[in-house]
Amino acid sequence: MATLNDIGVAAAINILTAFAFLLAFAILRIQPVNDRVYFPKWYLKGLRSSPLVNGGAFASKFVNFDWKSYIRFLNWMPAALQMPEPELIHHAGLDSVVYLRIYLLGLKIFVPIAILAFAVMIPVNWTNNTLEHSGLTYSDIDKLSISNIPIGSNRFWTHLVMAYAFTFWTCYVLKREYEIVAAMRLHFLASEQRRPDQFTVLVRNVPPDPHESVTELVQHFFLVNHPDHYLSHRVVYNANKLSELVNERKKIQNWLDFYQNKYQRNPSRRPSIKTGFLGLWGNRVDAIDFYTSKAERLSRDISAEREEVTNNPKSIMPASFVSFKTRWGAAVCAQTQQSRNPTMWLTEWAPEPRDVYWENLAIPFVYLTIRRLIVGVAFFFLTFFFMIPIAIVQSLANIESIEKAFPFLKPIIEVKFIKSLIQGFLPGIALKIFLIFLPTILMIMSKFEGFISLSALERRSASRYYIFQFINVFLGSIITGTAFQQLNNFIHQSTNQIPKTIGVSIPMKATFFITFIMVDGWAGVAGEILRLKPLIIYHLKNFFLVKTEKDREEAMDPGTIGFNTGEPQIQLYFLLGLVYAVVTPILLPFMIVFFGFAYVVYRHQIINVYNQEYESAAAFWPDVHVRIVVALIVSQLLLMGLLSTKGASQSTPLLITLPILTICFHRFCKGRYEPAFVRYPLQEAMMKDTLERAKEANLNLKGFLENAYIHPVFKSADDNGSDSDNDITTGEWEQEPTLVATKRTSKRFTPLPSKDGGSLLSSDEVNNERSKT
Amino acid sequence: MATLNDIGVAAAINILTAFAFLLAFAILRIQPVNDRVYFPKWYLKGLRSSPLVNGGAFASKFVNFDWKSYIRFLNWMPAALQMPEPELIHHAGLDSVVYLRIYLLGLKIFVPIAILAFAVMIPVNWTNNTLEHSGLTYSDIDKLSISNIPIGSNRFWTHLVMAYAFTFWTCYVLKREYEIVAAMRLHFLASEQRRPDQFTVLVRNVPPDPHESVTELVQHFFLVNHPDHYLSHRVVYNANKLSELVNERKKIQNWLDFYQNKYQRNPSRRPSIKTGFLGLWGNRVDAIDFYTSKAERLSRDISAEREEVTNNPKSIMPASFVSFKTRWGAAVCAQTQQSRNPTMWLTEWAPEPRDVYWENLAIPFVYLTIRRLIVGVAFFFLTFFFMIPIAIVQSLANIESIEKAFPFLKPIIEVKFIKSLIQGFLPGIALKIFLIFLPTILMIMSKFEGFISLSALERRSASRYYIFQFINVFLGSIITGTAFQQLNNFIHQSTNQIPKTIGVSIPMKATFFITFIMVDGWAGVAGEILRLKPLIIYHLKNFFLVKTEKDREEAMDPGTIGFNTGEPQIQLYFLLGLVYAVVTPILLPFMIVFFGFAYVVYRHQIINVYNQEYESAAAFWPDVHVRIVVALIVSQLLLMGLLSTKGASQSTPLLITLPILTICFHRFCKGRYEPAFVRYPLQEAMMKDTLERAKEANLNLKGFLENAYIHPVFKSADDNGSDSDNDITTGEWEQEPTLVATKRTSKRFTPLPSKDGGSLLSSDEVNNERSKT
Repeated sequence: MATLNDIGVAAAINILTAFAFLLAFAILRIQPVNDRVYFPKWYLKGLRSSPLVNGGAFASKFVNFDWKSYIRFLNWMPAALQMPEPELIHHAGLDSVVYLRIYLLGLKIFVPIAILAFAVMIPVNWTNNTLEHSGLTYSDIDKLSISNIPIGSNRFWTHLVMAYAFTFWTCYVLKREYEIVAAMRLHFLASEQRRPDQFTVLVRNVPPDPHESVTELVQHFFLVNHPDHYLSHRVVYNANKLSELVNERKKIQNWLDFYQNKYQRNPSRRPSIKTGFLGLWGNRVDAIDFYTSKAERLSRDISAEREEVTNNPKSIMPASFVSFKTRWGAAVCAQTQQSRNPTMWLTEWAPEPRDVYWENLAIPFVYLTIRRLIVGVAFFFLTFFFMIPIAIVQSLANIESIEKAFPFLKPIIEVKFIKSLIQGFLPGIALKIFLIFLPTILMIMSKFEGFISLSALERRSASRYYIFQFINVFLGSIITGTAFQQLNNFIHQSTNQIPKTIGVSIPMKATFFITFIMVDGWAGVAGEILRLKPLIIYHLKNFFLVKTEKDREEAMDPGTIGFNTGEPQIQLYFLLGLVYAVVTPILLPFMIVFFGFAYVVYRHQIINVYNQEYESAAAFWPDVHVRIVVALIVSQLLLMGLLSTKGASQSTPLLITLPILTICFHRFCKGRYEPAFVRYPLQEAMMKDTLERAKEANLNLKGFLENAYIHPVFKSADDNGSDSDNDITTGEWEQEPTLVATKRTSKRFTPLPSKDGGSLLSSDEVNNERSKT
Repeated sequence: MATLNDIGVAAAINILTAFAFLLAFAILRIQPVNDRVYFPKWYLKGLRSSPLVNGGAFASKFVNFDWKSYIRFLNWMPAALQMPEPELIHHAGLDSVVYLRIYLLGLKIFVPIAILAFAVMIPVNWTNNTLEHSGLTYSDIDKLSISNIPIGSNRFWTHLVMAYAFTFWTCYVLKREYEIVAAMRLHFLASEQRRPDQFTVLVRNVPPDPHESVTELVQHFFLVNHPDHYLSHRVVYNANKLSELVNERKKIQNWLDFYQNKYQRNPSRRPSIKTGFLGLWGNRVDAIDFYTSKAERLSRDISAEREEVTNNPKSIMPASFVSFKTRWGAAVCAQTQQSRNPTMWLTEWAPEPRDVYWENLAIPFVYLTIRRLIVGVAFFFLTFFFMIPIAIVQSLANIESIEKAFPFLKPIIEVKFIKSLIQGFLPGIALKIFLIFLPTILMIMSKFEGFISLSALERRSASRYYIFQFINVFLGSIITGTAFQQLNNFIHQSTNQIPKTIGVSIPMKATFFITFIMVDGWAGVAGEILRLKPLIIYHLKNFFLVKTEKDREEAMDPGTIGFNTGEPQIQLYFLLGLVYAVVTPILLPFMIVFFGFAYVVYRHQIINVYNQEYESAAAFWPDVHVRIVVALIVSQLLLMGLLSTKGASQSTPLLITLPILTICFHRFCKGRYEPAFVRYPLQEAMMKDTLERAKEANLNLKGFLENAYIHPVFKSADDNGSDSDNDITTGEWEQEPTLVATKRTSKRFTPLPSKDGGSLLSSDEVNNERSKT
């Protein structure tokens, strides 16, 4: 039970920490030597060149001596806010802009709520003296919360009315925001120039056919079933092994560069390494020779593997990118069922080329259901039982076992100060490490599940991360105990007992969550802008590896916006804000500071730092929307539970209608706005097609689409200077006659023997289709 | 607690009742005078003509004197089974055949289960003596059930293994049946001749436009967005008032006929009626004159209203049936989103013309969500609180209040025998009346909800009726108490307590359900074949109204298969069978007799009696499938609850996996087979189009589709001899130029002023579309 004073102290500490981070950032960012760490986005856009190359005094290339720039150390803030939204869309893509709108949404929701709550509810709560008379220990925070209202008081009607007001306001803002984002998305898609994914559909689960190869089959199928619209297609190769080899060679090349640099700096001694594990033991050999021969061997392997992939029909997956002559044709194909068997010839919009996650295209479709099931079960166990392995590690990693394993450390450990430090630190470390790796684990799960675009992977990871946080951070903090214990309790509790149990603990945890917001939110966001990890890694790489400007380019790690970790974090704040809005409104200002501060910081980062990996045109917004709605419903249920223990059960019917209304609101929004994120209206497609035909009558669309959907490992072949054969990049693309003779000989069930090849496609193919059905 | 003896007696009574019904049926059906009651299907098909018309002795026209035909009184049974399935599909449609397969499915599931249960579980249960030693009262039935196994016995493993075996068998049969039905549906759709609904799509929520009428708007929109496929369209008129008037006139005409008949039979006295309420009071007038003038007035109203509907643009609904040149075009349009705003230009497959429920086409689309919500809430209250008004009626309808209201009845009521009869009868009568009207109430709800096809209405009513029966008949019989009391209990109970509470009561209710099956199932089905109600009504109509053969045709009421009441009844039996298969297997033979008997009876009825109102090509099967899966899961959960009270909790993990597996099975089936019932593959459409083009190169499709989707009130106009103007039936259908000048003058946002009309559609329309976005 912290007092207002304690909170003040904690706030001061956290503000100071954040301030220190900001100060460090302000100093570091204006040093030219850090330019590539703090402004990589501009380098990627080609709008900024390295200050190391330009002229000027040697020292000023690395350190900034202009004292004036130190005075204006916070001037990045207004700068970050200045860029107008349309320019920002052009600069960093719609995804980033809409991502920033989530923070703005937080402000839009919580600022009016906070004003109302402070104007109405704080006085209502404060002017009681239940807690003073109760004889319980209490803090000033509690005096401002719902706990201070006596049981059965009529004042609870205020909270009820406020709950309605907050719900309506939140829904109104959510609806408006959904409307705006949907319009932004449609406008973005409409105004955008021609993109390959507008014309392309991904076909999966092409059925096996003993007479025809996948490419022939795909061609025949679409020539028959979309005769007026089919343009061309590109089969998908299983090039996972090849890209592994290419990555491997890149790593070897890095090491080779490193030793060559070392040798150049100190030509007197050729560097040598040990060949064993991690270079710790084994024979000592000449490093440059070793890596040169290794790189050569890999290059040979790569060209052999490339040959294999291109020529072996088994490396062709039963999937294909099919391109159409018009956007209309693609929109039709993507939204319709093709074949009688609904698990065959599955079509969906092709992701943007850079958004494709190529590794997963090689997964046979049949395994996807099984994989989904496995991941579902694994995630369940991860969420509810993750404490078990951590507890085991914790029980092993105590001082006694360390002393047993490493007896030579005993004298150091036995020093009292160090011992207490380790004892205090050790139990937490396994949990901390787990939590740091959790997003990676979730990402691996999503990858295993077989999504074929980076955006879908991130969306799924984000939703899992949110569930994990909801159960283990939110519920876990309110009802202390592991998730499994909670689960067990819930199963054995009656249905209407659950909101009560949680609702009652909520006011007591307010101070904990205030501290959480300050540490995780304020200081965390300030830490984000400092970019300590990329800073260190960049300078290490710069020192050891960089020879040319191109190397420096590669050493730069701009990072991405990190939707899969960032969005769930914001959602946790939405949840806390909505839950505490009625119960302990004092929490809201802390929340608002977080949203405002994070908005500025992330806007700065998006403008100057983050690289845009893909553009999904804000496809994630329905997820964001639904999670805020869920938070709203949770807050309503918990309030219901809380009030029912406060002798205000006559308000229950009024409270029950709230979640029902919210669900209706959600269904309305889903019907009205979600299709804009899922489907592609034919009207839109036809309009663009017509315009394009009018503007560029003789456009070579085939040429435009030709190399769009090639596995990057084939694309980058030339870069690595290997003997790239252009079999895949130009093969089977050109020689496509409109009428194709089928290769089949057996015509089961076909009454008349049809001629073997040479016949026109249309009637022949119909026979084939008939014989299959 | 009934003994085996009691059950035997009940069985004997019910078998005798059923036998009596069958005997009555056998005698009545071979009387020529009843021919139209028991063989209406053949009359409808035009394969049988009235025996009254044909020659022969006068008496033998009405009564059958052939004594031989009385001996073979059960020969309808083999006759009903003889017609092969393909012929039956041709005779009565796929819906009926697949409906019969539900009964067959019951046999397929329960016969092997019963054999296994009798071979394994009855001995295992019987060879204990727990009940004998328990000192409780028990019956022989209980000795055969799971109640006879001592607590904590290892014999429960048998039940566990059996639960697995039954689940796997049920799932296997279900999967195979889904596969067969899906194949039957696809084959039916493929082999079927050209139908208007294959080419037609229903467009709803056409946005209002100040410059163009709905018909122009629809035409422009589809000419622009489906230029290669659009053929024609037909707007929907709000003709509800008109069809009301037409129905009214038909009723008046009936009365007119009645009095004219009366007058012809007895020309000495002109019939007269009173004009007041129900003909009980008011002025006495000449009946024939009265009705003649009334019919004339209605005819005038009808032609005025018809004029109004045709000419007033307000009577045109923002909906339209749009026809395409190819099945492919229609399939594309039905499955894709048309406009940027997902709530506008909504397309779906048009129902078969006779399946359209015209009244609901006039409902504006915006109201549908609200209506759905209202019906949802209403159904909730109907299910859980229906006992309240009935209890009120019951409390009012006691002997004292009757005596008060009708004092002159007092001497009769006070007779002891009559009094006890009324006292025993009265409380149940309100409930009985409610239950009789329940399907009608549910159908009204579905109609209010706004479904636009009869098949959808029946499907939705069926699913509501099933939920009602599940809660009020199944759960209500097991845990005695009203549904609301149950709901209240469940909310206050812990989640895992619910299956326990129900599970424990299950074995005790076995005898009740056995009796229920015999009364509701055996005797009920036998009553169905007797068709007592249509028999009486037919003869009444025949006596009072029938003048001509055509009148007799109309007096015939073949009825329909009644999916909305029949299917939920079968589902209740599936539920009982699956729940009791492990617990009290002695119930299974009663179930099997029901399924077998009902199969024969309904097959006979479908062949000889029921009229096919529409053909949905077995669109209801996914509903049937999912309800059996739900029954399976319920049975597993209840078994889990039961076993956990029997000290066999170590088996819980094994039992929990069962519902999970079942859900996985359901998801698999849904993904694999459901699309066959929802979507229409392009491959299929293209194949049929190509075949048709090859076979009938110059087919006049426009002529074929012309009058398909006209409101029946316009179609039947000629029949009623009114002054039908053919405005609607032939209007705006012919004069459709391919290029249509728009009527709009305002071109917001269009950079160049486009010419007012006269310009080519394509570019002009694109401008319009642009100006809207």
